[in-house]
Amino acid sequence: MNDTMVTVVGNVATGVEFRESAAGGVARFRFAVPARRWDRRGGGWVDGPTSFYTVWARRALGANLAASVAVGEPLVVRGRLRVREEEKDGRRWTSAEIDAVAAGHDLTRGTAAFRRLTWKAPVLTEGHGGTTQGQPEARAATVIAGSGTLGEALGTPRDTAPTAAP
Amino acid sequence: MNDTMVTVVGNVATGVEFRESAAGGVARFRFAVPARRWDRRGGGWVDGPTSFYTVWARRALGANLAASVAVGEPLVVRGRLRVREEEKDGRRWTSAEIDAVAAGHDLTRGTAAFRRLTWKAPVLTEGHGGTTQGQPEARAATVIAGSGTLGEALGTPRDTAPTAAP
Amino acid sequence: MNDTMVTVVGNVATGVEFRESAAGGVARFRFAVPARRWDRRGGGWVDGPTSFYTVWARRALGANLAASVAVGEPLVVRGRLRVREEEKDGRRWTSAEIDAVAAGHDLTRGTAAFRRLTWKAPVLTEGHGGTTQGQPEARAATVIAGSGTLGEALGTPRDTAPTAAP
Amino acid sequence: MNDTMVTVVGNVATGVEFRESAAGGVARFRFAVPARRWDRRGGGWVDGPTSFYTVWARRALGANLAASVAVGEPLVVRGRLRVREEEKDGRRWTSAEIDAVAAGHDLTRGTAAFRRLTWKAPVLTEGHGGTTQGQPEARAATVIAGSGTLGEALGTPRDTAPTAAP
Repeated sequence: MNDTMVTVVGNVATGVEFRESAAGGVARFRFAVPARRWDRRGGGWVDGPTSFYTVWARRALGANLAASVAVGEPLVVRGRLRVREEEKDGRRWTSAEIDAVAAGHDLTRGTAAFRRLTWKAPVLTEGHGGTTQGQPEARAATVIAGSGTLGEALGTPRDTAPTAAP
Repeated sequence: MNDTMVTVVGNVATGVEFRESAAGGVARFRFAVPARRWDRRGGGWVDGPTSFYTVWARRALGANLAASVAVGEPLVVRGRLRVREEEKDGRRWTSAEIDAVAAGHDLTRGTAAFRRLTWKAPVLTEGHGGTTQGQPEARAATVIAGSGTLGEALGTPRDTAPTAAP
Repeated sequence: MNDTMVTVVGNVATGVEFRESAAGGVARFRFAVPARRWDRRGGGWVDGPTSFYTVWARRALGANLAASVAVGEPLVVRGRLRVREEEKDGRRWTSAEIDAVAAGHDLTRGTAAFRRLTWKAPVLTEGHGGTTQGQPEARAATVIAGSGTLGEALGTPRDTAPTAAP
Repeated sequence: MNDTMVTVVGNVATGVEFRESAAGGVARFRFAVPARRWDRRGGGWVDGPTSFYTVWARRALGANLAASVAVGEPLVVRGRLRVREEEKDGRRWTSAEIDAVAAGHDLTRGTAAFRRLTWKAPVLTEGHGGTTQGQPEARAATVIAGSGTLGEALGTPRDTAPTAAP
């Protein structure tokens, strides 16, 4: 309710680190947002200092970012902002972090080929094969006609907790 | 200063129409944003009615959207919101429009391969060859080391008026 | 999770209507957001068409808006945006609505005296007196309720007070 | 164009410091944004760590904030976000700053009495009296200044007043 939602447009500054765990995968990278503003007097764009954020992405978004994004690529990232202060080695650190809920390559800077995936959560109990479990799996992109039933037709649950296959 | 910036996450509902003109290219498509919210009582996601927006994208963003996006694909779109009311055939219409400043495939739903492009504006005077003028042109993705000079290194002007090659 | 959050800055266009019901109070008003943008060529602000929204506010926010806001006053409104289309008398209407989560007078345009209130929900079972139940009730302004490390957090060196020039 | 706009809802954590200068007045204060989120499992609100921002406000907004806001009061603040890193005494500090474009008391928490002001910039050349120059000045509330079609726009059928239940 009181989340501070923010959308940042910038460039990936460090490689996407992806880590699997029992609670699901998490990706993390640093993100650089240059400040560029129109100068009314000079009549041109002026640069300000770049803002850096640490971006976290969980589950499918984390896995897909790790599979799709390289250092230097431009992204649009939407998520919850928080400013963390912590003590480390007797020094206090502040960091601005974004818990991403959606993200994609910024098409202002180039083109992209998209491939829709379904995503299954890892089965944590021992199984037989399961080699593809927890992996993205290709699915034909669903092409939708255009109106009324769109929401319904596309209706793959967003942000539902991924459930293990039976 | 008083722009209403908004970020919408949803699906492309109609094909991207792209039109070139003397003032530069413009892309346009309809965008569907399903309402999904967590129901505190029921403890599950509930659907509300889908919101539809008309998205406009100019210059490089318009051209790249037209080249990259198909109906049904999920996008993150950031831009200026306006609600237009107009009279047509004696009836009044309201539409919610977004003038996009950045957009990309939502990697919550799949993976994407990105290709950085530079973009030159069409030369409107007659010339000799000019076969690539007004066309996107591939450039090697710039991989950046990671810190200090990032803003500078990436410094391709955003939102600068594309200038014709001499 | 997939809410489209938006913040609009503009003026109250109709009186705030407030209605009590078993489910709690609801306020509703129309809100006008003028489009003003810096014109790079002309070097001045230019007006575009005004966007209109229907704003809904529930419970304490609704009651306080009804008690505080008059037509023409400037507000900042934050909330969930949705674009509704409905059929009425054989015609289709679109409206842009905002379900407000926070709102206040825009201090860019004037000053405001604030009075903190606590708010009790109506007791729906029968009682004896209860005449003030469901009413706002004045309370002394709480100085940052429940924020233990606050004082500490404020003392960082970067927060030196701006000093007056000699 | 590439500004990162953000809206934060929280409480004023330090007194508003206001400083006049030749370039116009500037106000500055620290702002505390508590993280409160709905816990799906527990079915209640849970607190996370508070995020702190340094808010800057210029000209009329700065002067009015200084005149209207006390420590502990709840605000909605909209502005440009930047994350600054700087070196001081051999240590590196990060701070999250917001350059406010609009702000007001959050009416979720109380009521407010608003007084519209006009604001004149200081005359920097020498003058005679000029005692009110650079000072806010009360003006009768303007009912939607300069919005010709306003009345018309309000009369659309979808805007029927919510009626009381019989």
